[in-house]
Amino acid sequence: MAEVAESTLQDLEARFQEGDIRALARALTLVESGHPLGQALLKRLRGKGQAKVVGITGSPGAGKSTLTDRLILEARKRGEKVGVLAVDPSSPFTGGAILGDRIRMMRHHQDPGVYIRSLASRGALGGLAGATVAALNLLEAFGFDRIFVETVGVGQSEVDIARVADTTLLVLTPAAGDAVQAFKAGVMEIADLFAVNKFDLPGGERIVQELKSALELSPPRPGGWRPPIFPTVAATGEGVEALFEGLEAHHQHLLAHNLLEAHRKERARFEVESVIQEWGRRRTREAEEVIAQVAQGLLSPEEAAKALLGLRPGSGNGEGPS
Amino acid sequence: MAEVAESTLQDLEARFQEGDIRALARALTLVESGHPLGQALLKRLRGKGQAKVVGITGSPGAGKSTLTDRLILEARKRGEKVGVLAVDPSSPFTGGAILGDRIRMMRHHQDPGVYIRSLASRGALGGLAGATVAALNLLEAFGFDRIFVETVGVGQSEVDIARVADTTLLVLTPAAGDAVQAFKAGVMEIADLFAVNKFDLPGGERIVQELKSALELSPPRPGGWRPPIFPTVAATGEGVEALFEGLEAHHQHLLAHNLLEAHRKERARFEVESVIQEWGRRRTREAEEVIAQVAQGLLSPEEAAKALLGLRPGSGNGEGPS
Repeated sequence: MAEVAESTLQDLEARFQEGDIRALARALTLVESGHPLGQALLKRLRGKGQAKVVGITGSPGAGKSTLTDRLILEARKRGEKVGVLAVDPSSPFTGGAILGDRIRMMRHHQDPGVYIRSLASRGALGGLAGATVAALNLLEAFGFDRIFVETVGVGQSEVDIARVADTTLLVLTPAAGDAVQAFKAGVMEIADLFAVNKFDLPGGERIVQELKSALELSPPRPGGWRPPIFPTVAATGEGVEALFEGLEAHHQHLLAHNLLEAHRKERARFEVESVIQEWGRRRTREAEEVIAQVAQGLLSPEEAAKALLGLRPGSGNGEGPS
Repeated sequence: MAEVAESTLQDLEARFQEGDIRALARALTLVESGHPLGQALLKRLRGKGQAKVVGITGSPGAGKSTLTDRLILEARKRGEKVGVLAVDPSSPFTGGAILGDRIRMMRHHQDPGVYIRSLASRGALGGLAGATVAALNLLEAFGFDRIFVETVGVGQSEVDIARVADTTLLVLTPAAGDAVQAFKAGVMEIADLFAVNKFDLPGGERIVQELKSALELSPPRPGGWRPPIFPTVAATGEGVEALFEGLEAHHQHLLAHNLLEAHRKERARFEVESVIQEWGRRRTREAEEVIAQVAQGLLSPEEAAKALLGLRPGSGNGEGPS
């Protein structure tokens, strides 16, 4: 049995290395479903390839998918092979509308230089899943020059994407409250670039001014990067070329200041944290008895955590595993 | 030295049990700062008391603090002792505005039956910290009849509060996009009650109708609970009495259907998960060498996680600690 799996793995890896897009699709499915073969393949392929990874985030309805669609065109004009990961919230309320947006991107399905994959986000608001980063690693190993990761939603997933991507683009609109939302939620700090999309709507100039003022108060970024602001109208393509050049400028900044490696380490750190978090989630689901004891005050959460992870009881001072 | 700590602990616990509010404040500070004395005290006090725990959440600017202020008054009219935990995002951009809201609540500082505590949320968007639940446990042990936990922000903290509170209130406004935001982000599913606050603004009726339609599509809740919708104007107090009665009705529903214990277990589960997540976060911060190996593809995230938690290497199949 193990030998069969081994030969399947080698066959899949060989086809993957040859650039067979069906091998990529199969590998992504294996990884997303947590299949051991996917884990094994990932281990062989990790660290191969070097894509420019761009995270695109912002509130629902900001036009992220349409903007991504336009950015793909810009990348293709420059001869880049492009991968896209679109992370959907799994809520039944959102499925419909988002699929509608995604359909616009389907024109790229005729283009062999573009590969688009939708991923379910486990738990509507649970941030970016470890499986998303695993998928990203596969796309990178496949040899794409540029990978866009579009995260729908608000909150944790925006912070997560900034840890995973090399360059993070925050998409806002002139809609009332959109900028305020960004300031309040602390998302300002994580964006390397801003797009004020739907700039043809009233209030675009005002939001650009508000952003500028807020950014002046914001702490300096590594290497002295000042996040630029790009007015765009994704529906017509207006401003998208300048935005793409902005993405490129940020990548050059990372290279010039030796910052890319730090980004890659942060991504690895995120992956390891996600694994530990997922273990914690699974173990606490399974251990009804231990959890009941915590609820009754018989065990502290720290004692329960040690027991669930199979650590020696009483090791350390309750502040972590020894 | 250990004996000194032991006598300090006993003294603090005795004053706490006598209802000394300064002992509560000291205990909260010890717990929030992660002091071992706080952990020890918490362990002695866990599981004592039985408060009605109400989570209040919603987007920034929805008027949550003003509404909480009004709900405190309703609780006091009924003779309840009230504790409030206000969880602030730590972003420098938000501090000012939120402090402004909080000042309104300060009139209760003259009232010995009300205790209000602001907690820093570690990491602006990182969801609810384990320390918040520890603080909640302390307030409960102190003997408050009702505890309001107000979470500012969007995303993960809203999902977290629903796991920690017995009753979750989602505050919306007629502002454009507020309901849409709720539907998109999957927050609908976690609310036991809705308040459409600032109902005197245009569009209030429309949002109530939208919510009703969405709730009809929403899956049934445990015990057949149908989340009610309350129009409120927190600034004048309009609709707040009905809302308070709604909170009470939900609590009676939990009691009648034996659902309270399940809520308490979910809170305990959240605490244990938080501990494991925090260990993961700390360990990945400290272990530069291991993380670098993951980034280079020399270690898988699973192998790194095992190494960091001090688990036997090679135990299990890469799907978790054995």
